[in-house]
Amino acid sequence: MLDYFNLAKQYGTPLYVYHQNTLKDRCHSMKNFADTLSKNLPCDVKVSMHYSSKANSNPAILSVVKEVGLKVDCMSPYELLVNEKCGFMPDQMLYVCNNISADEMHFVHDKGILICLDSVSQVETWGKHFPGTDIMVRINPGAPGVGHSEKVVTSGKETKFGISESSIPQLFEVAGKYNLNIIGTHQHLGSLFLNDKISDYIAGVKAGLDIVKRCFSDVKIVDLGGGFGVPYKPNEQPLDLSALTNELLPVLKEFVEDYPSVEEFKFEPGRYIPCEAGNLIGRVTATKHENNTWWIGTDIGMNQLVRPSMYDSYHEIKVITRNVCDCVITANFCGNVCESGDILGKNRSVHAPEIDDIVVVYNAGAYGYSMASNYTGRGRPAEVMIKDDGTTELIRKAENLLDTI
Amino acid sequence: MLDYFNLAKQYGTPLYVYHQNTLKDRCHSMKNFADTLSKNLPCDVKVSMHYSSKANSNPAILSVVKEVGLKVDCMSPYELLVNEKCGFMPDQMLYVCNNISADEMHFVHDKGILICLDSVSQVETWGKHFPGTDIMVRINPGAPGVGHSEKVVTSGKETKFGISESSIPQLFEVAGKYNLNIIGTHQHLGSLFLNDKISDYIAGVKAGLDIVKRCFSDVKIVDLGGGFGVPYKPNEQPLDLSALTNELLPVLKEFVEDYPSVEEFKFEPGRYIPCEAGNLIGRVTATKHENNTWWIGTDIGMNQLVRPSMYDSYHEIKVITRNVCDCVITANFCGNVCESGDILGKNRSVHAPEIDDIVVVYNAGAYGYSMASNYTGRGRPAEVMIKDDGTTELIRKAENLLDTI
Repeated sequence: MLDYFNLAKQYGTPLYVYHQNTLKDRCHSMKNFADTLSKNLPCDVKVSMHYSSKANSNPAILSVVKEVGLKVDCMSPYELLVNEKCGFMPDQMLYVCNNISADEMHFVHDKGILICLDSVSQVETWGKHFPGTDIMVRINPGAPGVGHSEKVVTSGKETKFGISESSIPQLFEVAGKYNLNIIGTHQHLGSLFLNDKISDYIAGVKAGLDIVKRCFSDVKIVDLGGGFGVPYKPNEQPLDLSALTNELLPVLKEFVEDYPSVEEFKFEPGRYIPCEAGNLIGRVTATKHENNTWWIGTDIGMNQLVRPSMYDSYHEIKVITRNVCDCVITANFCGNVCESGDILGKNRSVHAPEIDDIVVVYNAGAYGYSMASNYTGRGRPAEVMIKDDGTTELIRKAENLLDTI
Repeated sequence: MLDYFNLAKQYGTPLYVYHQNTLKDRCHSMKNFADTLSKNLPCDVKVSMHYSSKANSNPAILSVVKEVGLKVDCMSPYELLVNEKCGFMPDQMLYVCNNISADEMHFVHDKGILICLDSVSQVETWGKHFPGTDIMVRINPGAPGVGHSEKVVTSGKETKFGISESSIPQLFEVAGKYNLNIIGTHQHLGSLFLNDKISDYIAGVKAGLDIVKRCFSDVKIVDLGGGFGVPYKPNEQPLDLSALTNELLPVLKEFVEDYPSVEEFKFEPGRYIPCEAGNLIGRVTATKHENNTWWIGTDIGMNQLVRPSMYDSYHEIKVITRNVCDCVITANFCGNVCESGDILGKNRSVHAPEIDDIVVVYNAGAYGYSMASNYTGRGRPAEVMIKDDGTTELIRKAENLLDTI
C-alpha cells in the first residue's frame, strides 16, 4: 500500500493505476473459459473472446489483451485505429455499432472488418453502399436483460438495441434486396451479472439461440455478447466461471447438434478484463463534520470517475493514512466539483484521515478513464501500469489543459 | 430552420450552435436584474452578476458575457486562465471551489483573485499558507434546496456543500488563528428554479441572511449563488425576473437596513446565461419500429450531451425533415453509443424522419459541451456562433481523435 504514496508523489493525483498481473489473470480466465467451451463442443466449433475496448482503450491494456491471445471489438473509428495500432488484424476485430453514418460504414468496410448492424434501417444503409457483402446482425431476444442499473441493461423489449423476432422477415427482405450475406447473429444480455444471475443469463442465451434456430437457416457465427460481472461490493463473490461453463456448455452443445452451420461462438467481455486491475488514487483535500455527517473531500471529481454519480455505482474506497488514528468514522467521500452529485461513496467506515492522505478507489479499471471528461476545466488523470516485474510505466500522461489556452 | 441543414453540411454533425442574440439577451436580463436591485437598495449597495463559467466556458461565450458587463466565477485553474484570457480582471473574478489542494490555492492567491472556501478544513489549509488575507466562506443554511434532480440540489443538510451554523464557532477559531479576514459569505440554493419555486428560493435566501446576521458581524459581500432556471419543457414558462425582483427586493432591503457593513450582493447565474442560446444539431442515422416502439437513432451520443442520460433531463427535440410525410409517430431518440442509457428523449411526437434528416436538441447551451467526453472514442463536436449580423463563426473546431493516434 505504501507504493501508492510513492506513485502519488511521482505522478501526481488523481492517477489511474493498473496492475498488469491482475489484467493478465483476467485475460487468461477469459481465454481458458473460451478454450474449455471449445474443447468440449463437437465439430471443432471455435469460441472467440473479443475484448470490448470501450471499457478501457489504453494501448497498454490492449497490448496485454493481444499478448494473451484475445480478440477485440470496437465501435468507433478511433477505437478501430487504436486496436489496429496495437497489432490486431482485421479478422481479430469486430465492429459492433449502433446508429452510425454511411461515412463511418465506409471507413469500416475499407478496413475489411466484419460489421455487426443493429437495425433493419442500418442494414439498408449498408446494403445500398456495399451490396453482396457479409454482415452480422444484432437481434433482441426480448428476454429481460440483466444489469446493475436500468441504464446498462442491453436486452429486453424496452431497450434501443437489436432486431426483434417480428422484424426478421423485413430484415431478410432488405438483405435479399442487396444480396447481403448474414453470416452471424449477435445479442447482448446486459451487464455485470454475477453468480446469482447465471440462470437469467442462461435463459437469455437460450432465448437468443431459439430465435437463431427458428429464423436463420445457416449463420456461421453466434455472438453472445458480454456482461460478465466483477465483485464491486465487499460481500460479492467473483463470477464462478466453472459454474458458468457447466450451465452454458450443455446449451451450446445442444445448439451445435441442432444447427450444423455454426462454426464459431463469440463473447465480448468488456468490464471483466480491466476492471479489477485498475484503481484510481487521489488525495484527501478536506474533511468536515456537518449535520452529523462526515465528509471526506478529495481531488477525485465526477469528471475523473463518473460511475458513482451517473449510475449510483458502488466502488470500494480505502484511505491510506500516514498516521493511523484510533478514531473510526462513517463518512461520505466526494470530489472537487461544485455539484451535489459529485459523490464517490457514502457511509464508508474509515480511520479519520488527514489532509494529503491517499484515497484508493477500487475496481476503476473499466469505464473509469474511458468515461472521464474535462468538466469544470480539469484535465484527465495520468495512467500508470505496475508491471509483472514490479516496475512502473507511465502509459498516459496527465492531460494538461492549461497548455491548451 | 433551413440554416441548420446548411450548418450541418458545412461543419458536420453533431454540432453545437449558439445564437448570439439570445445569449446577449440573457446577459442583459441578468444585468438589468442586478441594476434594478441595486438602484432600489439603500446605501449604494452594489449587486454583481458573476457568470458561472462551468456551464459553458467557450471563450466566445465568455466574451459576450464580458462585453455586456457581467463578471465571472471559476472553479479550476483552467477556468481562471480562460476567463483571464477573455479580459476579465482579477476583481471581476471569484474563485468558488470545493475540496481543492494547497497547490491550487497558491495558484489562485498568486493571481490575486478572491477565493470562497467551502469548509473549515479548507479555511485551515488556506490560513496556513496565506495568513492575514481576505476570504469568503460558503455557508449551508440547511434550508431544503431547489432543483430538478437530487444530484443538483446544492443546499440542505444532505449535501456536501458549505459550513453549517453549528460549525461557525470553529470557523472563527481557525480564521482567528491565521488572522484571516472573512469579508464575505456565499450560499448556493440549488439549480433550475422557475416561477413555482420563487417562494422556496426566497425562503432559502432568508435562511442564509439570518445566519449572516446572527453569526457574522461585519461581512461586506453576501453571495446568493445561482439557480435561475430556464424552461426546458414546452409547458414551462420562463422565469419572471420582475416577480423575482418584487419578492427579493424587500428581503434584501431589510437585510441592508439591519446589517450596515454589507456593500455588495453577488449572484452566480450559470445555466441561465447560455442555455437557451445553444442547440445541439445532429443527423438521423437509423429508424426502427420494434416491440411497438419507434426509435430514431442519431449521431448525438451521451458523450456529446450527457444530461438526459445522467439526470434524466428533458430537452425539447425537433426533426427537420426534407420531405415532410403525413405520418406522425411517437418515438424515442437515441444516440450511437452501445449503452441502454444512451437516450436523448422518450415519447416524442414527430413526423417520421428519413436518414440524414436533421435533429435539433434545444437548450443545450449549458452543461452540454462542458460535460461532453470522448467515451467510446468519439471526439467532441464543433461549436459555432450565429452572430447578430447573421454571419456564422466557428468558435471551436470538432475534436479529431484520429489525428492523435
